[in-house]
Amino acid sequence: MEELKKLVKNHALGNPVRLGVMVFLIPRRKALFKDLLKVLEVTPGNLDFHLKILEKEGYVKIYKVFADRPRTIVEATDEGVAKTKEFLRTLMVLVSK
Amino acid sequence: MEELKKLVKNHALGNPVRLGVMVFLIPRRKALFKDLLKVLEVTPGNLDFHLKILEKEGYVKIYKVFADRPRTIVEATDEGVAKTKEFLRTLMVLVSK
Repeated sequence: MEELKKLVKNHALGNPVRLGVMVFLIPRRKALFKDLLKVLEVTPGNLDFHLKILEKEGYVKIYKVFADRPRTIVEATDEGVAKTKEFLRTLMVLVSK
Repeated sequence: MEELKKLVKNHALGNPVRLGVMVFLIPRRKALFKDLLKVLEVTPGNLDFHLKILEKEGYVKIYKVFADRPRTIVEATDEGVAKTKEFLRTLMVLVSK
């Protein structure tokens, strides 16, 4: 059951907000910070906290673009997409045994 | 994205230890408390805390059996199995879109 240990200790995805961010980003690849706020119904401070952890762990990149006003974009990295899919796949395999 | 909101707010499964407990129990249906401890590498107090939440939310039943000495058994409920599978299935669908 090494997989299960790893899942439980997975710092990046072992939180529903962070898992939710990745699940939302995967089919879109990127999203506006303000759209993530709406979708996940969390506060800006809370989302910011979780995004910093995902960024530190290499799951997302966060940057600003300037249209009429500055917008924060959150983009899933290739590595983040791969790791999240692998995380979910492992869970599915474990419950299907 | 109502599914994603629900996932993020899912009190029972929105924690890696609790999700790990359910993922371990589903193929086995029940396990000894002491085996869960080993598999998940958590402390007894930590596991007990999370099991109480799962029990309160109807995901598991916890009871003692007496062999040579008392043993605590954790058993997944039908409802808990169904809800956990549904939770994982929804995540998979969301990332496959």
